[in-house]
Amino acid sequence: MSNFDALSLVNPGVKQLRPYQAGKPVSELQRELGLQHVVKLASNENPLGLSEKVKTALEAELNDLVRYPDANGYYLKSRLAELNSVTTQQITLGNGSNDVLEILARTFVSDQDEVIFSQHAFVVYPLVTQAIGAKPVAVPAVDYGHDLDGMAAAITDKTKMIFIANPNNPTGTFLTTAAIKAFLDKVPQSVIVVLDEAYYEYVPEGERAPSVEWIKEYPNLVVSRTFSKAYGLAGLRAGYAVSHESIADVLNRIRQPFNMNSLSLKAAEVVLDDHAYLQKAVEINAHGMKQLTDFCEDAGFNYIPSYGNFLTIEVGPDAEKLYGELLHEGVIVRPVTGYELPNHLRVSIGLPEENDAFIKAMKKLRG
Amino acid sequence: MSNFDALSLVNPGVKQLRPYQAGKPVSELQRELGLQHVVKLASNENPLGLSEKVKTALEAELNDLVRYPDANGYYLKSRLAELNSVTTQQITLGNGSNDVLEILARTFVSDQDEVIFSQHAFVVYPLVTQAIGAKPVAVPAVDYGHDLDGMAAAITDKTKMIFIANPNNPTGTFLTTAAIKAFLDKVPQSVIVVLDEAYYEYVPEGERAPSVEWIKEYPNLVVSRTFSKAYGLAGLRAGYAVSHESIADVLNRIRQPFNMNSLSLKAAEVVLDDHAYLQKAVEINAHGMKQLTDFCEDAGFNYIPSYGNFLTIEVGPDAEKLYGELLHEGVIVRPVTGYELPNHLRVSIGLPEENDAFIKAMKKLRG
Repeated sequence: MSNFDALSLVNPGVKQLRPYQAGKPVSELQRELGLQHVVKLASNENPLGLSEKVKTALEAELNDLVRYPDANGYYLKSRLAELNSVTTQQITLGNGSNDVLEILARTFVSDQDEVIFSQHAFVVYPLVTQAIGAKPVAVPAVDYGHDLDGMAAAITDKTKMIFIANPNNPTGTFLTTAAIKAFLDKVPQSVIVVLDEAYYEYVPEGERAPSVEWIKEYPNLVVSRTFSKAYGLAGLRAGYAVSHESIADVLNRIRQPFNMNSLSLKAAEVVLDDHAYLQKAVEINAHGMKQLTDFCEDAGFNYIPSYGNFLTIEVGPDAEKLYGELLHEGVIVRPVTGYELPNHLRVSIGLPEENDAFIKAMKKLRG
Repeated sequence: MSNFDALSLVNPGVKQLRPYQAGKPVSELQRELGLQHVVKLASNENPLGLSEKVKTALEAELNDLVRYPDANGYYLKSRLAELNSVTTQQITLGNGSNDVLEILARTFVSDQDEVIFSQHAFVVYPLVTQAIGAKPVAVPAVDYGHDLDGMAAAITDKTKMIFIANPNNPTGTFLTTAAIKAFLDKVPQSVIVVLDEAYYEYVPEGERAPSVEWIKEYPNLVVSRTFSKAYGLAGLRAGYAVSHESIADVLNRIRQPFNMNSLSLKAAEVVLDDHAYLQKAVEINAHGMKQLTDFCEDAGFNYIPSYGNFLTIEVGPDAEKLYGELLHEGVIVRPVTGYELPNHLRVSIGLPEENDAFIKAMKKLRG
């Protein structure tokens, strides 16, 4: 290649940007280590496999793929509006909730602004902030969770957006309804609060915040959800935001018109009505969570109590080394050093036999 | 809804932004007018239907959709690198080439910069420019095509990016290899030139520019391609850029890690080797182009000679009205008033019987 330095031409924020590190795909580990049987507990994916109803619907949709997707996502938005008791004008569709988070930042945040989030919170918040060249303000966590008082105290005249993950990834920590509401009362309406509820469906119904209802009272609140976790559509990329109509209007100006493809639109629409699938996903998660926490307690590992579909376990200062050793046992988990958790590994909840594979490998390596 | 004005909070460029107007989907027209049979010639889609090889491959892939896509697109990038005689480090994958164009602008262009494109050129260029708050510089067209001398003359110290569509949508105009090369010689290396070849496959092989090869000589050149047209994957969203490794490196920092979903990755990989499908798509396009130009010549309509899979026809000052009348005949075409072509309609090339439906409706309405 000729000598050419694109870095000298990029926007300021891009220079320091390091791309998101995805969980290692099964096929990559198989290629690298020549392993046949690999268990992936690295990306908080749904271990159930695709909803059969979705599969049938997608098969019927394949012939039409030469056509562009419906840029307005008419059917999916109608169903989401109905289920959330909002209007379709309050919905913004995303190519996964990653896309929703990025659209939000690009719409509201400039390189003169500040964006607040918690230490140990989802890495996409600093990434979308930095891509714009805005100032990231990471507020130290308390007990691995969001310090909402500290976050409120961090608000300045330059604050434009606050990200709250509830439950948070990669810690699984959870904020109560009362705590979030008290926080919203402290935030000026000129600051957009993004409540990222990617793991919403795993929270027991009685503990879930009435987040979408709050939008009436707090029009600066945006609720973000995903189909990648409990709904089992990570490979299809589907997410959405619910907000005040005025916010959805501007988000949809920045949104790429065909950001969700035809199959994602259809799959998301169909899976919303597969109640049995969702229930099974939640049940199998609760079962697997007990498997993993029981193991931790028996083996003497501390863990962060989790409301998500993963458990973040304190394994000690050689967490990255253990991650590598687990790979050789055919088990992919997630190192979280990048989240300032160098002593932890995040383990997604799998099927009972997948959780067993992790436990067995741990006993072998650390028994 | 409570009174809340998000517009007062958005970034400057977002305020004037009007979202991309997609071609009307068939289902929408059916809902609105209660029509059964609708012919859509509005979005430059491939009329052939999905490649059978792709369909078979997608069916086999459905079970794995609970897993995140491969963030590195290993298999697709490997195949693209091989076919284009470049390295995988020169490829950036996009959720359609719309995504590629947006990533390019967001990586290099700030609100202090200028972006040059041609009058009548693809609307996504001004949209991505405006979203950033950069200054769009639209250079007047000559004979509906790019005036490359005018575009070179428009370069200033603030110019950061130049978009060239070849062939151009919605005019179908085409620039020769010699003309583009002469232009590239005039552009400083601090300006990124994006050569958008969305309709590349419809250009006769002997007339195609060796654009990817030029990257060695012009490291500031980025070539953008799509799978939405001749490859028939518009509904799946797949596109890519080939560039100098240094540019691909920074583009991949801004790219969402899972911007292409698992099925798009697989479909694009498979369709690249379905040579019979591509050949048939090109042949059926040539046949349909002759149908439409013959009609225009017989009926006395001027048209812009086209290298794409569409023909833009001068129908007179009531083009928007004619568009509406065609809808009632069950034929969707594309008004191009937004492209400063108020007297034209753009008609995508369909199957022979679809082209006939358009011709029949035109004869009825304008006979």
